[in-house]
Amino acid sequence: MAERVTPDWIAVDWGTTNLRAYAMQGATVLARADSDDGMGKLASDGFEPALMALISGWLEAGPVPVIACGMVGSRQGWVEAPYRSVPCTPLAEKLTTAPTTGDLSVRVVSGLSQSAPADVMRGEETQVAGFLALNPGWDGVLCMPGTHTKWVHLSAGEVVSFQTFMSGELFALISAHSVLRHSLGGDGWDAEAFAAAVSDAMSKPEALAARLFGLRAGNLLHGTGAPVTRATLSGLLIGAELAAARPYWLGQNIAILGMGDQARAYGQALRQQGIEAMLVDTEKATLAGLTAAYRNAKALT
Amino acid sequence: MAERVTPDWIAVDWGTTNLRAYAMQGATVLARADSDDGMGKLASDGFEPALMALISGWLEAGPVPVIACGMVGSRQGWVEAPYRSVPCTPLAEKLTTAPTTGDLSVRVVSGLSQSAPADVMRGEETQVAGFLALNPGWDGVLCMPGTHTKWVHLSAGEVVSFQTFMSGELFALISAHSVLRHSLGGDGWDAEAFAAAVSDAMSKPEALAARLFGLRAGNLLHGTGAPVTRATLSGLLIGAELAAARPYWLGQNIAILGMGDQARAYGQALRQQGIEAMLVDTEKATLAGLTAAYRNAKALT
Repeated sequence: MAERVTPDWIAVDWGTTNLRAYAMQGATVLARADSDDGMGKLASDGFEPALMALISGWLEAGPVPVIACGMVGSRQGWVEAPYRSVPCTPLAEKLTTAPTTGDLSVRVVSGLSQSAPADVMRGEETQVAGFLALNPGWDGVLCMPGTHTKWVHLSAGEVVSFQTFMSGELFALISAHSVLRHSLGGDGWDAEAFAAAVSDAMSKPEALAARLFGLRAGNLLHGTGAPVTRATLSGLLIGAELAAARPYWLGQNIAILGMGDQARAYGQALRQQGIEAMLVDTEKATLAGLTAAYRNAKALT
Repeated sequence: MAERVTPDWIAVDWGTTNLRAYAMQGATVLARADSDDGMGKLASDGFEPALMALISGWLEAGPVPVIACGMVGSRQGWVEAPYRSVPCTPLAEKLTTAPTTGDLSVRVVSGLSQSAPADVMRGEETQVAGFLALNPGWDGVLCMPGTHTKWVHLSAGEVVSFQTFMSGELFALISAHSVLRHSLGGDGWDAEAFAAAVSDAMSKPEALAARLFGLRAGNLLHGTGAPVTRATLSGLLIGAELAAARPYWLGQNIAILGMGDQARAYGQALRQQGIEAMLVDTEKATLAGLTAAYRNAKALT
């Protein structure tokens, strides 16, 4: 149950696995609520009830505008908010209105697409907008670690190009389902093994599938422990990614969106290449982006 | 139920997911039987009943020797058959006897290990022995496609070195569990997309995680079909593997163990590099290897 507050508007970050709502007064968070009603588990008529279950306590003084970003705007979401093609600003002025049964107004932020190489984002564009709102005039490359890590080239307030890597999803798949799953338990971390794996993968990225089996064999034959195995797996994936994303970070001004383990691993790997990246709070960026979208929409009406 | 036959001995190929038994007279197969009682789903006391369920009909004239290879000899199997370290012949004379409750004699073939780079095989050593029995004096490299594809360097009847790649398991994980699972359905195959992906991955193996997400985005933005997506995924994984396994195939005499889709894909990828590889029947090699192990064991007693 959400706290009883009276917001001006409601910010919603709605991804594949989580739904997060914020009761907002201008740019200030009055209350927050979340659930695991992500896009991935909802049918098309399930979005409104899932949202109302979280925010109805905030609507007792009457409906207020809701601004949402993320996979809620995909084809399998509440309403399809069409991709905007880069180069462009991260946010459009126009949002896409979701169908509701009552008098609630829910508007959804569009994702961005790139034709060649084919690429898409949904949700990250709002974080990019928030990052730019918090850091006006910033030019450089934003590294956004996640299931699908994105490298986003920003210049003069526009997204110039971006590239997505499935490294995070590969780490999760290998950890959960592969023959290595028994060798990766716990959350120990060997920083030296990580650094060595980053260097190894940057110079021999083609060896990934052999290195993965080598981790299993090293565990069987030499008793290699989980902290070394986990850090090596992460280093191999991030190292290969850095080798491929070189044009995005070499000689660039870099910020990493995130403060957790994965973001710190990217920071460490970049530090090995002589790059000091600033770490940025993801929730702050998301909320600043949704606030910018709300203000744009309000200015239009 | 197995046919009623009276074998001299019984050959067993017992992997993680399948159990296959053959009633043998010398090197001739009298009957075959199989089940899905693989090592992966059996507790230590489950092996004897699982085997008896398949072969009891073949033992009516009394017990005969059983020779088994594969994961049945792992630490989680029926009995641990210790690894033998390469360089060595693929088969030892001595086998490891599994504990039984009756008078059945079950002996298990040892796997092979390599200390650096750390690597192991179980089951493939028997196929290597069978291949050498069928092709006496053959020197070269055996490519053994599978969940964990192995490249095995053979010289003068010995395994000199080998290297395992998890490419097959990565293909299965990505197909079953990743965001690409919806873009890979059916069994269509685009040979041009495969060839292009092999070349692409050999020259830019570091881009794998980006190419994977690019397949998803290509499906969303450009409607790329499943036959192109599946063949590209396969080509990316096999291409990176060929780049890493180059010392194993460049200028070498190559045979590929297998006749199915995966083996033919490796054959095609090698053909692009100017290598014509012979394709070899896997079951024939396994049975020839188990027959060699049976004869070795018999000569000892």
